[in-house]
Amino acid sequence: MMQTIERYLADNKDRFVRELLDFLKIPSVSAISTHNGDTRKAGEWVRDQLNAAGVKAELVETEGHPIVYGEWTKAKGAPTVLVYGHYDVQPVDPLNEWKTPPFQPDIREGHVFARGATDDKGQMLTHVKSAEAWLKSSGSLPVNLKFVIEGEEEVGSNNLDLFLEARRKQLACDVAVVSDTSQYAPGIPAITYGLRGIVACELTVHGPRQDLHSGIFGGSIANPCNVLAKLIAQLHDDDGRVQVPGFYDDVAELSAEERREFQSLPFDEAAFLKELGSPKTCGEKGYSTLERRWARPTCDVNGLTGGYQGEGPKTIIPAKASAKITCRLVPDQDNDRIIAAVEKFFRDRCPKAVRMEFKIYHGCPATVCDIHSPWMKAARAAIKKGFGKEPVLIREGGSIPVVGTFKKLLGVDTLLLGWGQNTDNLHGPNERFSLDAFHSGIHSSAALWEELARK
Amino acid sequence: MMQTIERYLADNKDRFVRELLDFLKIPSVSAISTHNGDTRKAGEWVRDQLNAAGVKAELVETEGHPIVYGEWTKAKGAPTVLVYGHYDVQPVDPLNEWKTPPFQPDIREGHVFARGATDDKGQMLTHVKSAEAWLKSSGSLPVNLKFVIEGEEEVGSNNLDLFLEARRKQLACDVAVVSDTSQYAPGIPAITYGLRGIVACELTVHGPRQDLHSGIFGGSIANPCNVLAKLIAQLHDDDGRVQVPGFYDDVAELSAEERREFQSLPFDEAAFLKELGSPKTCGEKGYSTLERRWARPTCDVNGLTGGYQGEGPKTIIPAKASAKITCRLVPDQDNDRIIAAVEKFFRDRCPKAVRMEFKIYHGCPATVCDIHSPWMKAARAAIKKGFGKEPVLIREGGSIPVVGTFKKLLGVDTLLLGWGQNTDNLHGPNERFSLDAFHSGIHSSAALWEELARK
Repeated sequence: MMQTIERYLADNKDRFVRELLDFLKIPSVSAISTHNGDTRKAGEWVRDQLNAAGVKAELVETEGHPIVYGEWTKAKGAPTVLVYGHYDVQPVDPLNEWKTPPFQPDIREGHVFARGATDDKGQMLTHVKSAEAWLKSSGSLPVNLKFVIEGEEEVGSNNLDLFLEARRKQLACDVAVVSDTSQYAPGIPAITYGLRGIVACELTVHGPRQDLHSGIFGGSIANPCNVLAKLIAQLHDDDGRVQVPGFYDDVAELSAEERREFQSLPFDEAAFLKELGSPKTCGEKGYSTLERRWARPTCDVNGLTGGYQGEGPKTIIPAKASAKITCRLVPDQDNDRIIAAVEKFFRDRCPKAVRMEFKIYHGCPATVCDIHSPWMKAARAAIKKGFGKEPVLIREGGSIPVVGTFKKLLGVDTLLLGWGQNTDNLHGPNERFSLDAFHSGIHSSAALWEELARK
Repeated sequence: MMQTIERYLADNKDRFVRELLDFLKIPSVSAISTHNGDTRKAGEWVRDQLNAAGVKAELVETEGHPIVYGEWTKAKGAPTVLVYGHYDVQPVDPLNEWKTPPFQPDIREGHVFARGATDDKGQMLTHVKSAEAWLKSSGSLPVNLKFVIEGEEEVGSNNLDLFLEARRKQLACDVAVVSDTSQYAPGIPAITYGLRGIVACELTVHGPRQDLHSGIFGGSIANPCNVLAKLIAQLHDDDGRVQVPGFYDDVAELSAEERREFQSLPFDEAAFLKELGSPKTCGEKGYSTLERRWARPTCDVNGLTGGYQGEGPKTIIPAKASAKITCRLVPDQDNDRIIAAVEKFFRDRCPKAVRMEFKIYHGCPATVCDIHSPWMKAARAAIKKGFGKEPVLIREGGSIPVVGTFKKLLGVDTLLLGWGQNTDNLHGPNERFSLDAFHSGIHSSAALWEELARK
């Protein structure tokens, strides 16, 4: 079977690239309303591609940008796989830093440069093309496929959960597949089996009714900026451990196997620091940099605001000061319990000379998949076929909330199969995607359907 | 002699008010360049008033707004008094909170309401009118008078020091008089014998080259916002004492007499807190609220800036974070030594995982005058004559840098004789000045020339 597929992929290689370029020409910037027509056009393009491939697809309207839904479910008795991706892209600023225009895809150095090249048009398209290869060359697929390709991933996926809940029964499946992450490094394909969760909040310290003259009143009342700093400073001890009571109670330590696997990955700390422009790594004592990024919880201030922010000095005691704070979570921390503990931490420590306000934003728990599951084995085998190399198993420090939703709503694990690289300038100027990775991704995807069917 | 003066003041009372209103109609907002013509006009108005009074005056050009200089120096052998004031005013925003237009002076409840009424047009004018009363009714003054009335006090007095240095000899005097402070409370006239000094700086903590994804990188490198908070938190211990080594070394403790004098002043803490909208007083342990405001040094953050400041959350590790910080100083702290100690404090504590930047803004030492000097005795007697009540001796938590300059450059103390009230909405909407205080101020000033001559 795979030989027929291989031939089809070889015969259609150039067309696949041309179609990718067509897709990348559509400026589907979901955040900018003047691009609403373009964003819809990108959804229609995906729908048409699926239909042309033989996967029956439609646009599903939402309050925002439409969701493309497609399915091919004729593989009686075979597993059902849900493919998730997105056709919308990030804004292009700063535009003047692009070497070629973001929506005029340019091929150089073996890469296509365009906004959305890797995030997520190029990566997502590999699954459409692999389905096409199976259906066009053999008339069927070894598994049932359901595609959910949304147009609001870059603006918070506001309508996705409503869609998933409404279609819960229709979306029933055995495993989900998402290609919206990265390989570990060039030449080192990877499967991401764990993501951190998140809680987000804003802490505001209110002092006097309005900004006061720091000469006339300084020394007589609490300064919200100073109080805020004292509160934040208490979040970590000198070893970088978060001091919120109970914070680590439910943290699942890495298994010996996972620590070994992380240690075996090449990691050049000097190059890492140079890339970031940071003088030194830093963080929780007793863990390697990769462990801290992937498998340890954090508590970071994302923004500070208070008092005067213009040029030069201004002699005031500010009326208030605030901090935006996010904690990255790991299994098995409960996001609701953690955010409640963070609020209590601040309430217990906030002096009575100010008034404290605490605002809770979104949250989601960490997700981690069983690295020994048959789905994982199938994915490893498929990537080995597509990339010619056994993938490494990695985690990722960020959060992809839909993975948790799939687990909760549909009861399935998600295979995070990234074809791109961390260095592909996702969200930045000169975003790119390797054409080799594009083709290897299509190969891997085509092999994946067969491997998953073996289960 | 004083009887003739009294009669002149009584006869011309209404005209003085009319002239004050004329002065207040000139929108001399020094900060706003479209008002440059008006600001100059106010300077010309003061020059003309002085000349009409018999004090020979001129406009002295500067890089910015002109300085009015006037002198009457025919009192051979008598002391020479330098009167300082300003004819420029603060901007009027928020305009919609004014009950009557800021440059259409309105008299109600015994007050004139207008921008600049108390700060400093009304207060300063008392000294011009008292000189006029002496010169018009008796043909001479008991002291020599030199007037320096600037037009840039509200924008930092950028050209004043140059003027004072250039005219150092011409400005030679025995004592300076400034009416740009307040009485202690309604019915409690005061002499301000001490001002706090100030140092201002900005502390910036630099982390990665650019904002980073807090999921991908969180836990691996230092977060500038968290580091900044830790640095600021170390500034004070739990008793509100500043922890910068050497900070208190040169602090002159209040004398028993001063503490007694402060304690004897009526101070309603509940009303004070209600006015500020603050739940509780707070500050250095072991000192009363007035002592902390007037005679103890402070270290306040005036502004915090770092990372994301928009709506909702954003998951970044910010590239940098900064704090604007001012310390209020008391005698005998040296501003240069204190700012150097603050910088060293942060450098010693800043972790190597970030880069620290430290910017020093202006500074000036505290000033305090001998409360037993003959000048002070003269001022007390004059105020008793003008207001019918012995003034209390107070300090002020703010800084008036020119007082230090007079000390350094001319070697003289400054008598800070405030006729207004703290509650006169200086710098705010509905600024006002009591007409009784205006007339009592003129009386006090007229008596002051005589009392100072007795020395």
